[in-house]
Amino acid sequence: MKITPPSAAAREEALVRLDGLVKPLGSLGRLEELAAWLSAAHDAVPPRELDDVRVAVFAGDHGITASAVSAYPREITAAMVRVFLAGTSGVTVLARQVGATVKVFDLAVDADGLPDEVTAYKIRRGSGSIDREDALAPGEASRAFDAGRRIADAEIDDGANLLIPGDMGIGNTTVAAALVAARLGLPAEEVVGTGTGVDEEGRARKVAAVTAALARTGDRADDPFERLTALGSACAAATAGFLVQGAVRGVPVVLDGVFSGAAALVAQDVAPGAVAWWLAGHRSTEPSQAHALKALGLEPILDLGLRLGEGSGAVQAVPVLRAARAVLAEMSSLADLT
Amino acid sequence: MKITPPSAAAREEALVRLDGLVKPLGSLGRLEELAAWLSAAHDAVPPRELDDVRVAVFAGDHGITASAVSAYPREITAAMVRVFLAGTSGVTVLARQVGATVKVFDLAVDADGLPDEVTAYKIRRGSGSIDREDALAPGEASRAFDAGRRIADAEIDDGANLLIPGDMGIGNTTVAAALVAARLGLPAEEVVGTGTGVDEEGRARKVAAVTAALARTGDRADDPFERLTALGSACAAATAGFLVQGAVRGVPVVLDGVFSGAAALVAQDVAPGAVAWWLAGHRSTEPSQAHALKALGLEPILDLGLRLGEGSGAVQAVPVLRAARAVLAEMSSLADLT
Repeated sequence: MKITPPSAAAREEALVRLDGLVKPLGSLGRLEELAAWLSAAHDAVPPRELDDVRVAVFAGDHGITASAVSAYPREITAAMVRVFLAGTSGVTVLARQVGATVKVFDLAVDADGLPDEVTAYKIRRGSGSIDREDALAPGEASRAFDAGRRIADAEIDDGANLLIPGDMGIGNTTVAAALVAARLGLPAEEVVGTGTGVDEEGRARKVAAVTAALARTGDRADDPFERLTALGSACAAATAGFLVQGAVRGVPVVLDGVFSGAAALVAQDVAPGAVAWWLAGHRSTEPSQAHALKALGLEPILDLGLRLGEGSGAVQAVPVLRAARAVLAEMSSLADLT
Repeated sequence: MKITPPSAAAREEALVRLDGLVKPLGSLGRLEELAAWLSAAHDAVPPRELDDVRVAVFAGDHGITASAVSAYPREITAAMVRVFLAGTSGVTVLARQVGATVKVFDLAVDADGLPDEVTAYKIRRGSGSIDREDALAPGEASRAFDAGRRIADAEIDDGANLLIPGDMGIGNTTVAAALVAARLGLPAEEVVGTGTGVDEEGRARKVAAVTAALARTGDRADDPFERLTALGSACAAATAGFLVQGAVRGVPVVLDGVFSGAAALVAQDVAPGAVAWWLAGHRSTEPSQAHALKALGLEPILDLGLRLGEGSGAVQAVPVLRAARAVLAEMSSLADLT
């Protein structure tokens, strides 16, 4: 996958223009940095409007939830897909606030009977329990990765100019922690958080599960597709493909929380340089996200103490990006002051 | 001034409803806290829409700028008022992004010839140089305070359901630092920052100016109106009045940066309990803001590294507040999951 880097020339042009606006140098802080980033991504100063934002939520279940690593049973995943379709889940409500659209894709929900438009890319029902078996069968990781690429392509072909990956699946934070720990060589203890709200015993079960998964996998995890197969899920693979394809097509992506971060580490290994097309929307309360973002060199835009997933944090960064663009597009210059 | 506290019952009702929504308990972090806060302010669950947001920018000059405490000459203040009127200043651009309106009021700009609608509340041309004289003449602080109250009243009577104070004035951060230091008993060294971008020598001049101002003022600063007279400005007094009147009328206010924080400390002294009606929109890079917010018990919603003033940080918190409201208004309940 060939990744063309964002335009360094447009970035420079944006920085020069920002310094000439009616404000003290650098006084708009992160907005100035984001305005320059968007200029580079669009190769245009000011950047184009971010008027077609698409969230793709990847839904699936995990065998590891049988080990009680979550505060919720896996049946919740399929029920939540229906809430998404009704437009009353967290991210669907928050996306409406910023005029973004949300689609949900069943990659590996452990249920039948979901609508065809949701299951079009389905890989399997649930993933293997990573503490004792691979999450995916041979070939499934790359099939799911390709599904994520095709989903991104379809949204971009339909006009998307900003992509946001979301995730929905009981057990997701355990899988994300395993993927991040394996990639960065960290012990389970450092990456496992309380997820949707487990107590200390629940967290200990998560640490034990991730430790077992890492021991079982060993050096296989050095290869990104083997890492997805052994420790990941169809959703993680699809998210990675989605992120890569945004970069391939030169369309900015705003990462969400811990699941996005784990998938981004995989995606950057598959397509080095892809990270240049991604922003981190918000800081999750899960520790593995901080490790992933640090390794990727990304700094979250917002810190609202969120741990819902679904893309709910990333969509809230959209107004900040639009504000950054507006600064370049609409503020007058110091040269105009009389 | 009588301040009626926000509704504790509505806050409790909101918290119960939040716990029943289709999400893990507490997983929307700060959004949940803000949703409950807004419910209490509106005495309604969900709270009403924040569809009429008004920014009032208080503009003025300071004698202290003759001591080279700023990177800019005071002539910039009047020129910037014209940029506001043209709609191309930072806050006017950022306010348009969230559908907020901006009005600018000349309280003490050291210039003539600004339009009548801007000068209707003008108190004087420039304030005294606080290192060697009072900022205001006797009676001016309370006149400016009343002007701020009348400005808030006019906006509220016209339909505003969220108020944002902004500030424009070369030298503002020096005055804000003096007001905060006097109120909290802090040395100038701890509250003075680099403002619009002075170098170390410039900062040393600011520290010296604030130190001299504090020594000159002494215990007079214990009284909020004396503090405004000795160390403040017509803008600081008007901002304090604006904040108090929001609380009196039960209309939420989002504070901006360092100037808002200094005025809020005064306003809370004048009208104890008023702080219950205020939120802190963002964290400024100026140290005195952090001291002021800590004393007020307020935690900033955003941290984007801003130091522009004008209300530019506060307006960006508006989408977060609307998101918090939408969560309560539109998410479905766990009880509806089948």
